[in-house]
Amino acid sequence: MALLDELIHLLGPEHVLTGADAAPWLTDWRGRYVGSATAVVRPANTEAVAEVVKACARHGAPVVPLGGNTGLVGGGTPDNTGTAVVVSLQRMTQIRSLDTDNDTVTVEAGCILQTLQQAARDAKRLFPLSLAAEGSCTIGGNLASNAGGTQVLRYGNMRELTLGLEVVTPEGEIWHGLRGLRKDNTGYDLRDLYIGSEGTLGIITAATLRLYPQPAASCTALVALDSVSEGVTLLSQARLGFGPALTGFELMSGESLALVTRIYPQQTLPLPASPWFALLELSDSEGQEHARERFETVLGAALESGLAKDAVIAESIAQSKALWHLRESIPLAQAEEGKNIKHDVSIPISRIPEFVETTDALLAARFPGIRQVIFGHLGDGNLHYNVAPPLGVDPEVFLQEQDDVYQLVHDSVHAHSGSISAEHGVGQLKRDELPRYKSQVELNLMRKIKDALDPSGMMNPGKVL
Amino acid sequence: MALLDELIHLLGPEHVLTGADAAPWLTDWRGRYVGSATAVVRPANTEAVAEVVKACARHGAPVVPLGGNTGLVGGGTPDNTGTAVVVSLQRMTQIRSLDTDNDTVTVEAGCILQTLQQAARDAKRLFPLSLAAEGSCTIGGNLASNAGGTQVLRYGNMRELTLGLEVVTPEGEIWHGLRGLRKDNTGYDLRDLYIGSEGTLGIITAATLRLYPQPAASCTALVALDSVSEGVTLLSQARLGFGPALTGFELMSGESLALVTRIYPQQTLPLPASPWFALLELSDSEGQEHARERFETVLGAALESGLAKDAVIAESIAQSKALWHLRESIPLAQAEEGKNIKHDVSIPISRIPEFVETTDALLAARFPGIRQVIFGHLGDGNLHYNVAPPLGVDPEVFLQEQDDVYQLVHDSVHAHSGSISAEHGVGQLKRDELPRYKSQVELNLMRKIKDALDPSGMMNPGKVL
Repeated sequence: MALLDELIHLLGPEHVLTGADAAPWLTDWRGRYVGSATAVVRPANTEAVAEVVKACARHGAPVVPLGGNTGLVGGGTPDNTGTAVVVSLQRMTQIRSLDTDNDTVTVEAGCILQTLQQAARDAKRLFPLSLAAEGSCTIGGNLASNAGGTQVLRYGNMRELTLGLEVVTPEGEIWHGLRGLRKDNTGYDLRDLYIGSEGTLGIITAATLRLYPQPAASCTALVALDSVSEGVTLLSQARLGFGPALTGFELMSGESLALVTRIYPQQTLPLPASPWFALLELSDSEGQEHARERFETVLGAALESGLAKDAVIAESIAQSKALWHLRESIPLAQAEEGKNIKHDVSIPISRIPEFVETTDALLAARFPGIRQVIFGHLGDGNLHYNVAPPLGVDPEVFLQEQDDVYQLVHDSVHAHSGSISAEHGVGQLKRDELPRYKSQVELNLMRKIKDALDPSGMMNPGKVL
Repeated sequence: MALLDELIHLLGPEHVLTGADAAPWLTDWRGRYVGSATAVVRPANTEAVAEVVKACARHGAPVVPLGGNTGLVGGGTPDNTGTAVVVSLQRMTQIRSLDTDNDTVTVEAGCILQTLQQAARDAKRLFPLSLAAEGSCTIGGNLASNAGGTQVLRYGNMRELTLGLEVVTPEGEIWHGLRGLRKDNTGYDLRDLYIGSEGTLGIITAATLRLYPQPAASCTALVALDSVSEGVTLLSQARLGFGPALTGFELMSGESLALVTRIYPQQTLPLPASPWFALLELSDSEGQEHARERFETVLGAALESGLAKDAVIAESIAQSKALWHLRESIPLAQAEEGKNIKHDVSIPISRIPEFVETTDALLAARFPGIRQVIFGHLGDGNLHYNVAPPLGVDPEVFLQEQDDVYQLVHDSVHAHSGSISAEHGVGQLKRDELPRYKSQVELNLMRKIKDALDPSGMMNPGKVL
């Protein structure tokens, strides 16, 4: 039987999409990658995923797993040979169980992140992963890319949030690893190997994840700073002063906030212009008043010492939201202004001031008039070091320089012991850059693992390695 | 050249031990395993480790890495063929760097845990790993076994505390993966694969670890409870009430504390006898007074509702220490009383009451008069479910039943979705039990990884797999 017929036999014709029906799953949301496929299939459960993978293995067809299709590196888009089968997990949306005594939830890969956040809230718990795409990204995609977001400082990346996995191997076997255990030292860490492997070692179909107590209150503050270096010092003081109550520490350049208020005039900056700003979030287990008092103590000391130039503490949840909205509007304002070149990098926090200064100077020398839009999760050492064309230059023309800009910035990241992909993954976008920045020893180790677990190379080929 | 001569040539005769000089490294500290070896070698740096491994590879000699030799599963003891080379990391003790702005420390594998804890304290930081053997265990051993301990509830296991590794592969290559990054999504998670692999995939020679702010104060409380189930409820209330300030939650049976006060009459219980006790620790970023107030609020509510029968909050650091000393004396009192059978298991927290009840009943039926000494890190779902002989039975005679007791308890652990090794690892002790409790799919995945990264099988053979 032809593969397409087998797939239709397995799943029914309504869940095997081809032609125009399949098109939305064959391009990423930004339209940067377009692929083709034998079919896009939508299995309803783990056993069906396993059957699909077995059928693909028999026919030698590549398998491309796909979640909410919100990725930024083309990790879920097939190549254009038309031989692949795209396995969409979007029908596997169940929250299989939620255990408040164990503080865990077991959820299928196709569940939307926001749905899970809400289920946790309904059980008076917190699932802390939070990122811009949460309304449409899926847990499976979050796992495949080891998603980060805005609360990593306190709760870690997806790896730290995951206790167990269910995975379909490239042979179509099912690994039932859905453990709800915080300690388990009985062998190799398969869990963390699959997390972040971008579908190249198997398909994650479900996970058991950690829940946390909901904080009694959260409170946000905006602080004006003269330099990145002062941001690092303030972060250090905030960590010491707040301990684990510090759940967010974002750095934003004055330029990036000026862009927001220019593009969205209804948003206003509650402080005078400044070269840099930090956005701090406290999650307090006592209450709003207590959170504000703690802010006043630590930020008061920073103002007194001259480290902070100015600061505003949100007086209400609405004000907290407005401050976060400024931060979240930066990439939207950038998109509104036109195409730009994004970098998702991490650097040891202590070296970030030097990284920004050096890279700014190198870019200015090479591309006169270039405009940096720098913001990110300073608490995690993660910067979105974005670059916009000089004023008056057509973004499309500027984008022709993209590879040169990437290389300049990523060389600088590498020189500062950083990573060229902090949270977005490798996918197609950065695959060919890895050999430039990773040692041959490390690439060989990765290749050995890929060959051992997927000897025929059919799982999401052309991604990562 | 013979291997021994090569090793002497590489390291000098004083660091290649044979005969009686080697004996202390060829048996575990409890004297349960005795092996033999061509030599015990003590390389001084990573390059020397790599040269030793290359020499062993050329001669087809097994390599057994060894840290502080405090393991409980025979993971560092060679077999008795005499062909192995034991590679002791004890000369690699350097703290290579400590970065307070990045909150990281880079340390060599042979550094004693307590030395690292002190170095962190000297820099006004906390390295939170804490366990009974901390005065002699090494960071390398902690990494090889993914060590846990008493603060996992808040800070995680060794995996969660590690950002980067330096590893010598079975080919004698060096993977320079000492990254100080909290976010890095550029490929497979080699780091977490090596952590917990018990020296079977390579030798960890150094690591970059996370540091945390020192809490301003910590405070301990002891609570009397009627049942394990009430312990689980109290844990849930404590998590919600204290948030991340809850850094320890230990459960102890009344019997286990009665054993302590019987064997060590100078230690006294500050509460009347009770079937169960919980020991709670708060780490507060404000101060002692604040910590006590928070204890009073949450424990006050538990007393009022009848959940807790009685409670005492430490009035001083000395009292906190005395409470912890009771907990830490349980295994010592057991050893004092005579040999016993230990289980290091984890269970989803919500199922622990049922596990204890079921397993107690099964054991009592099969081994009448048997005495459980149950304690452990309830906050992590980790119990040390230990078993002492019936009164009047010679422990040596009782130990003949060890395999039957293991099987009964571990079968029950498995039936309650638990793990037969929560924090001690697999080593030699539990290797042959794995196939009973792990699926063939999972064992095959582990085997494929082992074969891919160590095709000649020379790294710590006979351990884990």
